[in-house]
Order: sequence, then C-alpha cells, then structure tokens
Amino acid sequence: MNSRDTLAQRIHRGEVRALARGLSMVENGDPGAGELLHTLFSAIPDHVTIGVTGPPGAGKSTLLDRMITRFRSQERRVGVIAVDPSSPFTGGALLGDRLRMQSHAVDPGVFIRSMGNRGHLGGISGATRDAGLILAAAGYDPVLVETVGVGQAEVEVAEIADVTALVLVPGTGDEVQAMKAGIMEIADLIVLNKADRPGMDQLEAAVAASLELAPEDRPRPPVVRVSAESGEGLEALWTSLDLLLSSTDPELRRLENTRRILRGILGESGARFGEMLLRSEYGSENELLELISGGSVTPYEAGLRLVRVAERMLEEDENQQD
Amino acid sequence: MNSRDTLAQRIHRGEVRALARGLSMVENGDPGAGELLHTLFSAIPDHVTIGVTGPPGAGKSTLLDRMITRFRSQERRVGVIAVDPSSPFTGGALLGDRLRMQSHAVDPGVFIRSMGNRGHLGGISGATRDAGLILAAAGYDPVLVETVGVGQAEVEVAEIADVTALVLVPGTGDEVQAMKAGIMEIADLIVLNKADRPGMDQLEAAVAASLELAPEDRPRPPVVRVSAESGEGLEALWTSLDLLLSSTDPELRRLENTRRILRGILGESGARFGEMLLRSEYGSENELLELISGGSVTPYEAGLRLVRVAERMLEEDENQQD
Repeated sequence: MNSRDTLAQRIHRGEVRALARGLSMVENGDPGAGELLHTLFSAIPDHVTIGVTGPPGAGKSTLLDRMITRFRSQERRVGVIAVDPSSPFTGGALLGDRLRMQSHAVDPGVFIRSMGNRGHLGGISGATRDAGLILAAAGYDPVLVETVGVGQAEVEVAEIADVTALVLVPGTGDEVQAMKAGIMEIADLIVLNKADRPGMDQLEAAVAASLELAPEDRPRPPVVRVSAESGEGLEALWTSLDLLLSSTDPELRRLENTRRILRGILGESGARFGEMLLRSEYGSENELLELISGGSVTPYEAGLRLVRVAERMLEEDENQQD
Repeated sequence: MNSRDTLAQRIHRGEVRALARGLSMVENGDPGAGELLHTLFSAIPDHVTIGVTGPPGAGKSTLLDRMITRFRSQERRVGVIAVDPSSPFTGGALLGDRLRMQSHAVDPGVFIRSMGNRGHLGGISGATRDAGLILAAAGYDPVLVETVGVGQAEVEVAEIADVTALVLVPGTGDEVQAMKAGIMEIADLIVLNKADRPGMDQLEAAVAASLELAPEDRPRPPVVRVSAESGEGLEALWTSLDLLLSSTDPELRRLENTRRILRGILGESGARFGEMLLRSEYGSENELLELISGGSVTPYEAGLRLVRVAERMLEEDENQQD
C-alpha cells in the first residue's frame, strides 16, 4: 500500500516518470491499477476531456497541434492520449509519434502518450478512461483524446469525452461519411478542415442534410470551417469549443462523468464475476465446452445455472448477515 | 415449462408465428428467452451464417436480394436479420423494409426480420446471435445478417457470422474507407459492387494496398468485382463464398461457434451477477452514485469491493460443498 501511495503522490506532484508508470499499469491491466486509481480519485482536480476523431487524412494531428498551442497560451498543461486500438493493421501509434515530432515535443507542459489495449479488462475505452484520470490527477487540463478512424473504439472512446469534435475534409468521400449514423451521433462539434479545398460547400450541405435527420430534442452540433494548416477559422472554433465546454453545469458534468466511470467499472467487474462463476461451477471454459460438445449441457443452460448459483449465494449471504 | 416446450416445438416445425414470437422474446430481453434457447439448442440443424456489411449506398440490399434468389434456387430456406442498432438517426429498420418490398416478400421460404436492441442484456450482438439460432432451429439455412454502416454494432455482429462480406463501391470515398483498420479486419470476402462505375480500378488498388498491411499469417480475403444490379460477376462471387464456407471443417466451425456463443452468454451472466452484487451492497446505482458524489466512496473502490464480496461468497460456497 505504501509504495502505491508514493506513486500516487508522485503522480499528483506531476512527476513524469511516475505518470508514465501509472499509465503503463493501466495499459497492461496491472492488478494494482484499480488501487492506484482509487487513491488518486478523490484528489483529481476539475478538468475537461476533449475528443478529436475523424477519418484518416482529415488533418487531425495538425488540428491537435493548433489546439495544444492554444491551451498552452492560456498557461494550461495539456495531456494528449492518442488511441491505438492495437490493430494488426495499424501496427503502432502513428499519430502519437507524429505529434511527438512536432513543436510540442520539448515542452514540459505537454504530455503525449499513445495508448493501446494490452491487458485492460475494459478494452481500449476502459484504458483511455483510466489514463485520462491519471493525467488529470497529474494536473493536466484539458485532456485531449485522439482516435483514428470511425470504428468501435472511436464510438466507445467518444463516450468518455466531455466534448467530441468530428473532423471532416472535402474530397475524400466524407459526404457519405457524414451520413453515417454512428459517427454523427458522437459529435458535439463538427470541424470542416482544409477550407481551401474544393468541395467544401457540398460537404457542408451533406453534413447539414444528415443533421436534419437528427431527433428534434437533440442539440445540433455547431459546424465550423477551418484550415488547421493556415490557421483560418481557428478563432471561431475555439469560441465554439469554449461555449460547449461552459454550456453544461460543471456539477452536472461531474455527475455524468462519474456515472460513466462507474458503469464502465461495474461492467469490468461483471466480466470478472462471469469468469469466477465459470471456474467455480465448471472448472474452465474448455471443460464446459467439452460438456457442451458432448451434448450434456447447452450454453444457455450454463448461463442460467451461473445466474441461479449467484442468486443462491447472495440469498445465503443475506441470511447470514441477519 | 410446458408452454415453452410447445413454442420450441412449433419453432422447430417452422411455424412463422411461433418464430416471430421467439424473435420478439429475444429482442425484448424476455426472461423466458434463455429457457427457450436452451430447449431449442440441442436440435439446431447445421447451418451457416453469412454477414453482409458496408457503408450506406454500397448496394447491400440489391446484393442480398441476389443472394436470396441464389440460395432459393438450391431449395434452401433463407433467414435474413437486418440489424438496426436502434439509432435515433436511422429511426427504424430501413433495409429490412426495403427487402420486404422486393421480390421475396411473398416467398414462404424466406423469412426477413429487422432486429433492434430493446432489452437484450448482450446488446445488439447478443440479440442477433440468439435470433440467428432461432431461425436456424426453424430450418433456415443460410442465415444472412445485414448491418448498415461501420460502427461498433457492425464489428460485433460480424463476429457472429461464419463468413462476413464487406461491400464497397467506387466513387464514394471508399478508397479511404478501405484503409480503415476495423472494417478490413472483419472481412472474409470483399465485394466491389457497381462494376460499371468509374473509379473501380482505384478502389481495387486501394483495397489491395490496405490488405498488404495485414499480418502475413492472416488469410487474405478474396476480392470480387460484381454488379448486383446487372448480375455481372455474381457467379464468381458465389464460387468464392462457397469456397470460404467449405474451407473450414464443419466440426471446427461448430466448436468455434459454440465458443463464441458461450463467451457471449458468460458475459451476460457476469453482468447480471454484477447488478445483483451492486443491489446487495449499495442498494442501487443511484445510491452508490450519491456516496461517490459525497466523497465517501470512489468508483474504483466500489468495483474492488464487489469483486472481493464475490470472491468471499464463492469461497464460502466451496467450503460448504466440502
């Protein structure tokens, strides 16, 4: 416990090596990570988490670079998590590396980390959630979370952010992209990047058309045209972003964040419970599979039995407490 | 139990009303669904599940229509599940409806059902898994599962299928689409549709380039050019599909399917156990949230406590059995 407290204290003081160690614990699913996060949790300062997502080639890393510069000009320390779902196809954290090579690599007020999902029970979204909290505990605010692509990981990770910006560019088929339900639903703010390129009007019209399909009671995300490269339109983007961040009551946002964190953690505990029950009733997954292949058990029967065992145990436990 | 057996028997006989009722039980998370599936499970005939996914506008419904005609010509009964992740944007099962209006609407050998995720604990992938088994129990083979878009639901649902076909079209930015890791990873077969459109060569080159990035030990998915509209290239597509379906040992496929089904069900049982533990230890999620907001508990501490309680209960239970 003592060495954990020390690690937590060092993270709270913003020590970069302690921070890196904490993040590795999270990424690797180290059993001590839960204890560390518990210790850090009560003293995490208020902070915002901003998600930046969009298809490859949309200029996300240039935009992130601009965003970092902007928050640094306000004397804020900026944490960046570049999410890499450890895909055999992507084969590494391209964006984190690209960012590191840019202007902020030597700025001690910027901490950039690529996150994979090597062992975290909650997958990449669980790992990102815990990593964001560790960065916040170390005093980074905002925490920027960048995801590449528009797959499962992106949607899950977007749920962690207070505000998620979707970056689109003309001329790469984003007209169709924009129609995709999942990705439009996660966007609180839509950034049309590379304003100098042809096709910007069509892209904006396609985005507007697909937003028309949104339910009435959902706030329409603002749409901002920028050129991250030249800097054009960035002031309007920062205004939109600030407005979104200040439009929710901080108390309410904190509660919503806590609920999300809790649900994630309960889900991870649930996965653990399933494994524990399985071991206790059937020994192992393979032993149960053999029973199923032999025809003496069905998977549904096994599931029902585990639930019944859990019910009985809880009942007996309650009787004992009385 | 008796009425369940009767419903199961009626489903096995292929009665459409019983089938519809079973599917609704699955979709709504009816507590009797597990019992029904257990009863059906041992007598589910061998069958294949084919996933069809791709961005909107790729011509999936026309292709599905062709696929149904093809399997019908082999005197096979075809079940179709059109997955609708209950998005507020899509607002209903567009594709299922579109299919229903087409040529197979009055063919009793074709059963088409849109599936949402109203109450199933395993989400849309759990609901689709159970629905597919019910269709198979009623004698439908193949079961075709269609998903729209490329979000989280699509990736999860693809894991249920024996073979998943990714449908792409030129001229809609699929060059970029093709580069996306998640979607390429789920494809066993890539269908380039609308062969008459310009841009087909670029699309094929982009697909080939992104497949180059795949790990060596992963089988390369075959790429087939078709025009679902005119019928061009369909024979080659069926050949590829048949080859993929026959290339795995049926015994092995059955085992893999059972393992997937089991893992899904164990996850759902674990989640249920988690809810029970939460209720027993903290009353409800809201009560726990209040404790967390008040600063007396952290979410991580709550998660660790539930795991410890489960461990203790399982230990006591084992001691009692001795």
